[in-house]
Amino acid sequence: MVFLNGEFIPKNKALISVMDRGFLFGDGVYEVIPVYDHKIFRLDEHLNRLQNSLDSVQITNPYNKDKWREILLELTTHSNNVNQSLYLQISRGADTSRKHSYGELTPTVFIESNSLNPRSKTNLENGYNAITSSDFRWERCDIKATSLLANTMYSQQAKEHQVEEVILHRNNYITEGATSNIFIIKNNTLFTHPTGNHILPGITRDLVLESAKHCNLSINESAVTIDELLNADEVWISSSTREIMPITKIDKQAINNGKIGKHWSKVYDHYQQLKHA
Amino acid sequence: MVFLNGEFIPKNKALISVMDRGFLFGDGVYEVIPVYDHKIFRLDEHLNRLQNSLDSVQITNPYNKDKWREILLELTTHSNNVNQSLYLQISRGADTSRKHSYGELTPTVFIESNSLNPRSKTNLENGYNAITSSDFRWERCDIKATSLLANTMYSQQAKEHQVEEVILHRNNYITEGATSNIFIIKNNTLFTHPTGNHILPGITRDLVLESAKHCNLSINESAVTIDELLNADEVWISSSTREIMPITKIDKQAINNGKIGKHWSKVYDHYQQLKHA
Repeated sequence: MVFLNGEFIPKNKALISVMDRGFLFGDGVYEVIPVYDHKIFRLDEHLNRLQNSLDSVQITNPYNKDKWREILLELTTHSNNVNQSLYLQISRGADTSRKHSYGELTPTVFIESNSLNPRSKTNLENGYNAITSSDFRWERCDIKATSLLANTMYSQQAKEHQVEEVILHRNNYITEGATSNIFIIKNNTLFTHPTGNHILPGITRDLVLESAKHCNLSINESAVTIDELLNADEVWISSSTREIMPITKIDKQAINNGKIGKHWSKVYDHYQQLKHA
Repeated sequence: MVFLNGEFIPKNKALISVMDRGFLFGDGVYEVIPVYDHKIFRLDEHLNRLQNSLDSVQITNPYNKDKWREILLELTTHSNNVNQSLYLQISRGADTSRKHSYGELTPTVFIESNSLNPRSKTNLENGYNAITSSDFRWERCDIKATSLLANTMYSQQAKEHQVEEVILHRNNYITEGATSNIFIIKNNTLFTHPTGNHILPGITRDLVLESAKHCNLSINESAVTIDELLNADEVWISSSTREIMPITKIDKQAINNGKIGKHWSKVYDHYQQLKHA
């Protein structure tokens, strides 16, 4: 069962008009929200970010927070999975004719829930590979928008190179991953690109910073160069569904001699506590 | 009637799955092709550009040129309009689950035809207003992709400012309009941004260059600065549906004292001849 415009219906019955601006223009925003032990994780934070995305593109939020909570909770009960990943998309809606500018339309709301199976710590301790690539995305990466063609191109590149992520750089500075935020640890300091129009303000990013502080790492929200990335003590990526993953090889070059760093384990453990707090 | 995945059906019956990657990721490409006197204008050029867009995003072209011609011609016969605008979109198709990377899917093909009513020369001679804005789009503007949120934001900005177009600049150099190419005339030379990853290689852009040569203008395919734009003798925008429009005011500053330039009229006339050649 999925949710589409007020109804819970089978996924194969969930149809939209070709005139939906989500289809014609990538004119929509989305969220991905984890559910742990049947509880929606950091829902307020996700709904706040959703509101920011909607405001940025002038789409009126169709529901208030209570209504969102009610719909999302109901959707989670249609599944037996204790851990789920909620995907929520709002497009500007269907127009009668295709024109770039818009008037007031009824937004299209689509939500589905999938099982979420984060990798085990033992599994993560093997480390993951990444490659770097020049960041050719638009400069409003702070909006969690569905105009994602660039991101899908990078993800396909990752798949073709059999790596976990493509790490992006703009003017020689690391911004974020195609579908994640990036963290670099050097001499007990955690570096990550500051929020702004070049990265998504990740909910998990905030939780990583919170966990890192708890584990006595210094925090420096500033961008690092490609060289600094490759010479880091540790490199992590984070996202709501992948949590915190250690990267031990980038562009075929080993990070910290290919070994998991000491900080990752502690920060990972603290994040796990937050999930079930 | 519209065309969707092999069938001619009423527009309100044209539905796609919410799992279509065109909806989830803006993962598709498109073309807009004018029809004059029931004849499809520069179809080969449009189909070539379509092929380039498809190749750039690794979507297999579902039809060969003959089949495209057949479908498009049939669609034009469903309308009584002598002049039409064909909108053609190919998305990567619907997947079973949402993930950024992709396998082989069956592309979704949607085509519709609308009446096309280019403004009269008398009307165009009034001149049009534009504003400038920093170009925050991605750096693969050569792909005619449906991840168009940035373009819709600019078009909305144009609508709110009651101007015809938003002229974009990157690092102080004019790239193109939100939905058009830009031409600057100074001392009998026409300047326009060279093709590459920062502009769309417009079919009409090529025809403007052809017409300008015919009218003895020198052609210089290089980018001009914002200052050079504002101090031009003439500024034009072009697109398949808007043809060639003179811009006489930019950011509230008059171009050539707000008068239509002498070259526009000649180039416009030659373009009209090409349409009916």
